[in-house]
Amino acid sequence: MKSYSDYIWFETEKKVEYIRITDEVEQRLFDSGIQEGFCLVSAMHITASVYVNDAEQGLIQDINEWLQHLAPEEKDYRHNSLSDPNAEAHLRRLIMGHQVVLPVTEGKLDLGPWEQVYYAEFDGQRRKRVVIKIIGE
Amino acid sequence: MKSYSDYIWFETEKKVEYIRITDEVEQRLFDSGIQEGFCLVSAMHITASVYVNDAEQGLIQDINEWLQHLAPEEKDYRHNSLSDPNAEAHLRRLIMGHQVVLPVTEGKLDLGPWEQVYYAEFDGQRRKRVVIKIIGE
Amino acid sequence: MKSYSDYIWFETEKKVEYIRITDEVEQRLFDSGIQEGFCLVSAMHITASVYVNDAEQGLIQDINEWLQHLAPEEKDYRHNSLSDPNAEAHLRRLIMGHQVVLPVTEGKLDLGPWEQVYYAEFDGQRRKRVVIKIIGE
Repeated sequence: MKSYSDYIWFETEKKVEYIRITDEVEQRLFDSGIQEGFCLVSAMHITASVYVNDAEQGLIQDINEWLQHLAPEEKDYRHNSLSDPNAEAHLRRLIMGHQVVLPVTEGKLDLGPWEQVYYAEFDGQRRKRVVIKIIGE
Repeated sequence: MKSYSDYIWFETEKKVEYIRITDEVEQRLFDSGIQEGFCLVSAMHITASVYVNDAEQGLIQDINEWLQHLAPEEKDYRHNSLSDPNAEAHLRRLIMGHQVVLPVTEGKLDLGPWEQVYYAEFDGQRRKRVVIKIIGE
Repeated sequence: MKSYSDYIWFETEKKVEYIRITDEVEQRLFDSGIQEGFCLVSAMHITASVYVNDAEQGLIQDINEWLQHLAPEEKDYRHNSLSDPNAEAHLRRLIMGHQVVLPVTEGKLDLGPWEQVYYAEFDGQRRKRVVIKIIGE
């Protein structure tokens, strides 16, 4: 069994950003030389998500407004009096999930026609990272 | 390390359907011959989910009504003016998740007494697939 | 490839509890002797979650109130007339997810500075378990 680890660092300009990272993940897979296995992509900070969905800006805005509605910023959270006022960012990460496992087949990510890997930042303007870990042969 | 990949195709009659696929996954595991490892089951289309929960029709109806409430079909989504009018299906997939990793022990899926693997279609009546990828020994 | 399986049992005093299990998972990883690989932590009962987020009691209370709002206990669920009256617990598990895959690097869980593994019980006061399965080398 072979294994490979690397990290992608982010420091977004805005508080909330959605960044397509499929190509960065595919590059790491190529570097790893692994042909068959699993590729884990996981946000290491607890106010960010990694998810798979469409690279369509209208939908990304829809997702963002929907998250603002389901986990509003203005609500009177306990967390906000004790720590960084970012409780809504924790909740949005929980809805969206923080990791994906991508199948690796014949040296490629085995993704459907519209599947794109995204990093969603909900409390940015600081350095954060995503771990990419690939195991296989 | 051994690896195995296969696909399950769906073309649902209705727009929204919940389909139990535990037996289909277990069959692929048997075919793979893998005794110890991980089995990934992942929707390859971005308006469908794979999740683990109860094979109880009352609960499935509850889940569906709850998703209709959290991500309503009628809302004025940007995505719907640019593309297929299916933004709500993307959002429901995001809540429900698109993949599960099942532990494989002694050649069986190591599931709890009520755990069943489901495919949830939120924008059906077209051909879609799920990838099953198993790695182990 | 090596593999390792173990279980953590829970029988919570209260119906709803959030229990930090990072140390219990790390102990199993140590016992496994695996240096590089993936560690799956997955709830085997369908009214409980495993997730990664902050060990901050204010946030945990915020998460709990937010789940009570998104999946209220009092709603007239079909499931509650047919089975245990715990439909809301199934829905909360679906939002929060039921499993995480943790990267294992140099014999340690490769977690970010605030990442903690949690078991969330939404219908407790009965025996339930979580499977920990580690594969790698």
